[in-house]
Amino acid sequence: MAASSPISPLAPKKFPKLPTVEGVSLATYATGSRYQGRDDLLVAHFAAGTNVAGVFTVSKMPSAAVDICRQNLASAKGKASALVVNAGIANAFTGKAGAKAAAATAQAAAQAFSCPQEHVFVASTGVIGEDLDPAPLAAGIDYLATQLSQNVSAGGGDYQAAAASIMTTDTFAKGATRSVKFGKQEVRLNAIVKGSGMIAPDMATLLAFVFTDAAIPPSVLQKLLVESNATSLNSITVDSDTSTSDTCLLFATGRKKLDGPALRSVEDKRLKAFRAALHDIMQDIAVQTASDGEGISKLMTIDVTGAEDDAAARRIGLAIGNSPLVKTAIAGEDANWGRIVMAVGKSGEWVERDHLAIDIGGHKVARRGRAVADYKEAPVARHMKGRSIHIAVNVGAHAGKGRGRARIWASDLTHGYISINADYRS
Amino acid sequence: MAASSPISPLAPKKFPKLPTVEGVSLATYATGSRYQGRDDLLVAHFAAGTNVAGVFTVSKMPSAAVDICRQNLASAKGKASALVVNAGIANAFTGKAGAKAAAATAQAAAQAFSCPQEHVFVASTGVIGEDLDPAPLAAGIDYLATQLSQNVSAGGGDYQAAAASIMTTDTFAKGATRSVKFGKQEVRLNAIVKGSGMIAPDMATLLAFVFTDAAIPPSVLQKLLVESNATSLNSITVDSDTSTSDTCLLFATGRKKLDGPALRSVEDKRLKAFRAALHDIMQDIAVQTASDGEGISKLMTIDVTGAEDDAAARRIGLAIGNSPLVKTAIAGEDANWGRIVMAVGKSGEWVERDHLAIDIGGHKVARRGRAVADYKEAPVARHMKGRSIHIAVNVGAHAGKGRGRARIWASDLTHGYISINADYRS
Repeated sequence: MAASSPISPLAPKKFPKLPTVEGVSLATYATGSRYQGRDDLLVAHFAAGTNVAGVFTVSKMPSAAVDICRQNLASAKGKASALVVNAGIANAFTGKAGAKAAAATAQAAAQAFSCPQEHVFVASTGVIGEDLDPAPLAAGIDYLATQLSQNVSAGGGDYQAAAASIMTTDTFAKGATRSVKFGKQEVRLNAIVKGSGMIAPDMATLLAFVFTDAAIPPSVLQKLLVESNATSLNSITVDSDTSTSDTCLLFATGRKKLDGPALRSVEDKRLKAFRAALHDIMQDIAVQTASDGEGISKLMTIDVTGAEDDAAARRIGLAIGNSPLVKTAIAGEDANWGRIVMAVGKSGEWVERDHLAIDIGGHKVARRGRAVADYKEAPVARHMKGRSIHIAVNVGAHAGKGRGRARIWASDLTHGYISINADYRS
Repeated sequence: MAASSPISPLAPKKFPKLPTVEGVSLATYATGSRYQGRDDLLVAHFAAGTNVAGVFTVSKMPSAAVDICRQNLASAKGKASALVVNAGIANAFTGKAGAKAAAATAQAAAQAFSCPQEHVFVASTGVIGEDLDPAPLAAGIDYLATQLSQNVSAGGGDYQAAAASIMTTDTFAKGATRSVKFGKQEVRLNAIVKGSGMIAPDMATLLAFVFTDAAIPPSVLQKLLVESNATSLNSITVDSDTSTSDTCLLFATGRKKLDGPALRSVEDKRLKAFRAALHDIMQDIAVQTASDGEGISKLMTIDVTGAEDDAAARRIGLAIGNSPLVKTAIAGEDANWGRIVMAVGKSGEWVERDHLAIDIGGHKVARRGRAVADYKEAPVARHMKGRSIHIAVNVGAHAGKGRGRARIWASDLTHGYISINADYRS
């Protein structure tokens, strides 16, 4: 649990100041379900007209909350009125009782906010296999409902408290904000995320919530989320373990509308700045999540080039970022680049040994399938002592002419990871 | 390096007594290449008529020795005269210099034993990316050659010394022997193996050598090796990292011949006992290898049933056995079975949450997608305190009627693994 671990050495100095997003009102509450002395429930109420997009875990063991989000996203055609998140109990692998508990939570919010139940999105994070009692959550929703409904049009709430309320083994609250031109107006993007272990996103990951006041139709919103997710939350890894509960939801309250014809495509020129800002904020929270990897001492940024295509480059980058032998070498500040060769070799992708090139911290290490002739370990060893380790690999597909590329962020593997995961249940 | 780590708590009490295999003569030597005060070179000489089969790493970064074995296996049509193995330097990712060093080693053995160079098989294990000087190896081969050639027909040598000479981070020497009916005669099977880290076999793994005096043609020998490898060396994992150097060679000296027509198929009834014994000895060395996983405190045996097919069952078992969160839970003696659910869910295979069943140590934990109603943690917790942990999962494919099954052996993940791999170069 969070309290036991020291704050990640890669944590930002402070939580950024997140201004209000029009049409989003949020608040937190302490249910006492599993954690004592801290808020563990986040409730958000959205103004009428809010659209939502979502991406979820590809796990075949999805939590009850993931099941409900998927159903609602389809049946409510991208409309959202409320979000309810609890931390401590994942309500995953809990059978029919779990499905009932998640539905009861959604029902409580639907009553409190006088909206259809299918407009309520729920997310749960914490221990797998334990039953979730919906009663304390319903009590919290009731307690917060009046306050939230009063503020919903203008929006309001403390995003730092919101980010803190959804933490489990996280060692710091994670959020980000951007302001960007949207037609003739400025719109706001706020994002919060939780995640520290069981982080090997595949589709979406962990719990991440992005809020904007821009008016974007659901079909376009979904495409924007999927494309920005690919190069952000889907490009980080802590431990190669994919959660049952991964959920990323993007809410657009529609308070700031574009002039002109309806938005129909992500390629619409009026979306260009917004699209870039969404990519940017998604990468921001993704890197913050990797930076809070359980037991992290160093953050790897892995650039793969020369692959058959971008998807192959991503898989090679993940093979490097997930390799226990690479991760422990980084933790040990050991410039043992042979382990990077090993990880590239086991990726199963098109790579050519005799064209492989490796740089660490900007220093040439290997070219054309062996160490460079004048390789000196000292400058590489100095780079390895820092907090941020940069690894660049050209894998030489198409005889060195491959164009596929990807960037992956990964934590290292330390005694701290073992202590967190072998010493108590998280 | 081996000397630094305590002996695995899962090591057998002692090295088994391996009798002579007719037609195999072996000896060891200290080259001083990387290790001091121990033998690091193994040379075996085979009687005329010896056949060989081999399986190798699927890594796209194969070592120079793997390249040579692959070439010789094809060009010499399964004939073998000698085997040369060095420990300490893997001669992997060493470019043209590495290829020359491996060829020079094979050439030295060909001269010493007056055989074609393509009848010499070589294997190297140790650090990746460092150049191998072939001169000390050639000196060792020359030194041992006379002694080996005198004994080759009857066979001879110290298999325990042989197993010890090929160790790197291994904490104990690993070998096994079987005697089995082959037609009207008894034949012998001896096997030695090394491996402790970078163990996630895919095709073959690590360095393993099996010797028999049975007469089996190369095509049949290769099929026997591939099929027994699938359920043994390809069914263990330490750290999900696949080596550049994985090599398993099976030598059959042909001293014990069958009566009747030539062997043409693995299905030949006269092979039945031999085939079973080969499976058995391969599993023996595979389990010994998993039992020497770097930093191991407990060995998991994972039985997967109810999968779409056996290959899917194997991938699910490896997803469990490779999961850092499962491995740390086992190390921590924590009956946190939710992590097994997670690992099954991320496997990507056909699994059905609401048909999933889990047993630990023979105790029912979950049925039909949730914890059993009368689940008691105490007996499971007692099982978790042992050295051997048994996990059985029915993944419920085909609505609970799937027939695919596999058994996987895996080590846990401990502070010892981090110390071995983060604290010095291995």
